[in-house]
Amino acid sequence: MDTSAIPLVSADAHVNEPRRLWWDALPASMRDRAPARIRPSEEGAWELRRHEQTTLTQRQADAAEEAARNEQNDLAHRLAVMREDGINAECVFPTIGLYVWEMDDAALGEACCQIYNDWIFDTLESKSPRHRCAGMIPTWDMAMALRELRRIADLGLGSAMLPLRGVPEEYNSPHWEPFWEAVEECGLPVVLHQGSGHDMLFYRGPGAAVANLLATQSMAPRSAALLTTSGALERHPGLHVVFVETNAAWLSWAMDTLDSYYDAFLANPGWVRPELAEKPSHYLRRQVHGTFQWDPTGIHNIDRTGTGPLLWGSDYPHSEGTYPHSRAVVQEQFGHLAEADAAAILGGNATRLFGFDPAVVGTPVPDPDPTTRRTA
Amino acid sequence: MDTSAIPLVSADAHVNEPRRLWWDALPASMRDRAPARIRPSEEGAWELRRHEQTTLTQRQADAAEEAARNEQNDLAHRLAVMREDGINAECVFPTIGLYVWEMDDAALGEACCQIYNDWIFDTLESKSPRHRCAGMIPTWDMAMALRELRRIADLGLGSAMLPLRGVPEEYNSPHWEPFWEAVEECGLPVVLHQGSGHDMLFYRGPGAAVANLLATQSMAPRSAALLTTSGALERHPGLHVVFVETNAAWLSWAMDTLDSYYDAFLANPGWVRPELAEKPSHYLRRQVHGTFQWDPTGIHNIDRTGTGPLLWGSDYPHSEGTYPHSRAVVQEQFGHLAEADAAAILGGNATRLFGFDPAVVGTPVPDPDPTTRRTA
Repeated sequence: MDTSAIPLVSADAHVNEPRRLWWDALPASMRDRAPARIRPSEEGAWELRRHEQTTLTQRQADAAEEAARNEQNDLAHRLAVMREDGINAECVFPTIGLYVWEMDDAALGEACCQIYNDWIFDTLESKSPRHRCAGMIPTWDMAMALRELRRIADLGLGSAMLPLRGVPEEYNSPHWEPFWEAVEECGLPVVLHQGSGHDMLFYRGPGAAVANLLATQSMAPRSAALLTTSGALERHPGLHVVFVETNAAWLSWAMDTLDSYYDAFLANPGWVRPELAEKPSHYLRRQVHGTFQWDPTGIHNIDRTGTGPLLWGSDYPHSEGTYPHSRAVVQEQFGHLAEADAAAILGGNATRLFGFDPAVVGTPVPDPDPTTRRTA
Repeated sequence: MDTSAIPLVSADAHVNEPRRLWWDALPASMRDRAPARIRPSEEGAWELRRHEQTTLTQRQADAAEEAARNEQNDLAHRLAVMREDGINAECVFPTIGLYVWEMDDAALGEACCQIYNDWIFDTLESKSPRHRCAGMIPTWDMAMALRELRRIADLGLGSAMLPLRGVPEEYNSPHWEPFWEAVEECGLPVVLHQGSGHDMLFYRGPGAAVANLLATQSMAPRSAALLTTSGALERHPGLHVVFVETNAAWLSWAMDTLDSYYDAFLANPGWVRPELAEKPSHYLRRQVHGTFQWDPTGIHNIDRTGTGPLLWGSDYPHSEGTYPHSRAVVQEQFGHLAEADAAAILGGNATRLFGFDPAVVGTPVPDPDPTTRRTA
C-alpha cells in the first residue's frame, strides 16, 4: 500500500524555546533561577541549567543564537518545514520546558509553566489550526494545577501536560482525583512526555546512554498501570492519556500482565482494590495511547491492542527525529497495513484526541509562494 | 495442533523451604537473624521476616506446619505432582530465599546462600535428573560470589541465581566482569527471578498490588538493556541470562527501542560506549530469555524475537501458578503454533539452557505404583 496520500499528523513535535523566554518574563526576584538551557550528559540524559548556572561565555553564545531560534519558532518557517516533510499538522511540546518539573520551588514552577503556556499560545496555537500545543501543568500543588488547567483550557491550548512519573504523588493516589475530574470536563487529553518528572540518569557507565532511554520508556507502563488499576480510567471514561515518545509496544505486554495478576490476586482478600467492572486491558485499550517514530513491534501488536492506542510522531526538530525523511519512515513501517489502520495511527487518532479540524488536517500545508510550486 | 504429546519442562518451579532450614544450620551468633518466613502486604509485595521478627504464636504454627512442608519437598511427592500436571522436568527456585538479597550483612548473606544451596542439592538436584536447581550467589562481595559460583558448579547445581536488579553494582558495571567470565566458563545459565534484589513495594494505595507486579517485571528489560549495551553479552557469547516469571513480551519492545537509540546516539560523540559489532537486538535475541505462565503477546511476537528467548514455566506451587491445569493452559496458548516452535518454548530451550538429559526430559514421569496406572 502506498501511504503517501494518507494525511500525516505528527503527535510528537517540539519547539526550541527562546533561551531568554523565562528570564525576560519572570519577576526580578526569580530571574537568576530562570530555566536557561538543558545540558546533555554522556549517559544520554539531560539536565536543566538555570540562568545562575550558566557562564558568561554561554550567555554570549546563547544571545548570538537567539535570532535563529526565534526564526525556527515562527509559524511560516514551521509550516515550510511541515510541507517539506509531508506533515499536515502537529502536536507541540516544549524542550527546555520538559525539565521544569525538576524544580523544587512551587511559585517558580507555576510561573515557569504560565510563561511557557502564554508564549506557546501566542506563538503557534492562536495562529494556526494545524498546531495543538500542550499546556504545562504546575503539579507542585493541586489548587495550582487546577487553576492552570482551567486557564489553558479557556485560552484554547490543545492538551494538559503532566510529568511522566507522578509528582508529588504517584498517579494512583486520590490526590489526583480532582484533576482527572476537571480535565475530563475540559475535554483535553493528558500528555506525558518521555524523560519528564524523574531523574533521566538511571544508570552511569558502559552502555548507560542507550539503557537510560529504555529505562525512561519503562516509566510509561508503570504510570499507565497506576491509572488503570486505581480505577481512575474507569471512573473517568472521557480521560485520555497519551504517553509521548515512549513507543507503544509495551502496551500489549502491560495488558497481559495486568490482566493475569488482576485475576490471580482476586483470591487474596484486600489485594485487588478497587475491583474494576472490566479487566485492566479494557481501560488501557480504550484510554491509553503511546507515540513513536519507529515501533515495528507496536504495529505488529495492533491485532491485540487495536489501532486506537497508537499515534505516530516525528519528534521534529530533535536529533533522533525523522525529519526530513518522515514519509519514507512512514512508508517503511506502514506499507503492509490496511489503509484504514495506517490512517488511524498516522493521523486519525491524533485528530480525534487533540481536536483538530478534520478538514484542515486532511489537506497538505499550502505553498504560499506559487513560484516554487511544482507543476503537476 | 494437539500439544499433549510435547514434552513439557517447567522453567519456573519453586520449593517452599523448611522454615527451620536456616535457623538449624546457621551458627548460634546468626540464628536470630535467620530467614524464617515471608510476609505478604496488601500491595502484592512480599517482605522477609527474620527469626527475631516472628512471634511465639507464628513459630508454633510454623512448627506444626513443618512436616507438611518437608513432605512437599520430598522427591516422590514432587514427581507425583509433576505426573499429575503433565510436566517432565523442572527448573527449581527458592521461595523464602528470593528475599535473602535484602539482607545487609555479607557474612550472614553468604551463609544463607550456602545453606540453601547445600539443602537443595541434597533434597532434589542430587537425587533427580528431572530437576535442575538454582544456586544462590552471594553478591555482597565479588570474591564471595566467585567462590560460591565455583562451589555450586562443582557440586552440580543447574544455574547461578542473581537478583533481578544488580546489587551492589548495576549490571553494566565492570564490577561484574569476573563473574560473567567465570559463569561462562562454568557453563551455567544465569537466572534472575521477579521480585528479587529490589523493594517490591514500588507503590502503595489503590491498585498498587497489581501495578507492583508490572513494576517488578519492568526491571527485567532494564537489567537486560544494561547487559546488552555494556557489551557484557558480546564479550561472553556463552553467557545466557534467563529472567524468570517476568514474561517475555517486553523483549521485542526492548529490541526496537535499544536498536533505534543505539543508532541515533552514534551521532553524539561519547554517548555510545562501547560500540558493539551488532545492534543490541542481536544479543538480546541470542542470549536473553524470559519465562512465563501466560504470555500471548510474547508468543505473538516470536516472528520478531524467534522462539529462543521464550520458556514456559508453571510457577508451581505458588498461587498464581498453573498447577494442576498446566496442560490446558499450554494447549490454549500454543495450539495455534507450529509444533517445532511450541516444543522449543515448552521444553527444548530449557533442556538446552539448563543441561537436562534429553532422553530423560522426553519421557513422562513414570508411575511408581502400577495399581493406579490408567489402562491404555
